[in-house]
Amino acid sequence: MTRWLDEEEQAAWRAFYSSTTLLIDRLDRELQHDAGMPHAYYEILVVLSESQGRSLRMSELAIKTRSSRSRLSHAVTKLEARGWVKRRDCDDDKRGQFADLTEEGFAALEAAAPGHVETVRTHLFDPLTPQQVEQLKQISDAINASLKS
Amino acid sequence: MTRWLDEEEQAAWRAFYSSTTLLIDRLDRELQHDAGMPHAYYEILVVLSESQGRSLRMSELAIKTRSSRSRLSHAVTKLEARGWVKRRDCDDDKRGQFADLTEEGFAALEAAAPGHVETVRTHLFDPLTPQQVEQLKQISDAINASLKS
Repeated sequence: MTRWLDEEEQAAWRAFYSSTTLLIDRLDRELQHDAGMPHAYYEILVVLSESQGRSLRMSELAIKTRSSRSRLSHAVTKLEARGWVKRRDCDDDKRGQFADLTEEGFAALEAAAPGHVETVRTHLFDPLTPQQVEQLKQISDAINASLKS
Repeated sequence: MTRWLDEEEQAAWRAFYSSTTLLIDRLDRELQHDAGMPHAYYEILVVLSESQGRSLRMSELAIKTRSSRSRLSHAVTKLEARGWVKRRDCDDDKRGQFADLTEEGFAALEAAAPGHVETVRTHLFDPLTPQQVEQLKQISDAINASLKS
């Protein structure tokens, strides 16, 4: 039997869905406008910049960006065309490949970061109290755990 | 000067971004698999089903689904091809158009709803306490207000 949402759950779900899609759209639009990249590319650059030697195995990069292999491969091809990322074969694993962040890619990330962080702060943190930020972290962790299990 | 995120804000933002993108991806995949439609189409059908006469002016439908006119028009063309929605010219406004939900569209929505609601319940409400649901509603309202202002 379907466990339908009651009125309060319906209201919470709609507010949550609307706020997240609006926020993600806004981040995407502003990054595209200011830095010429969608948020998905920005996230790949961030993950690589934080990895040892600014380099990561493609399979790990896919996990860390919650991306399918094919979607990631498509994005990395675009990033390679801009000179921001370079793919490199693994020495010890003929099937594996690494993605390396280039100097140009790191510079593009550094240029994009201030505007992006400002958007996140303006639309996520400024409207919330510190207590709500903590609540949001716990709520998000619980949802994440459910989706990953 | 950039107002960078501190460690806690960074952690909250990453958990929030990861949980929302994972959840939206999951909803999209399950609706696509079970009902042959992405979540964006489902939302259009829901909004029409709740409108008077199951019909809405295209411009209002765009606002209610937080969609650009061109993105909505593209989706409605696809929904028309399935016989789920029909566009109709306004009698009193030559430039305006209505989108009407058809009987087939309403039936498609009814068939898709139980599975979709179950996914939302499993991954959003089951992992949260009632108090967290209330917190999430308030947090989402605050983010929405910031994005709409």
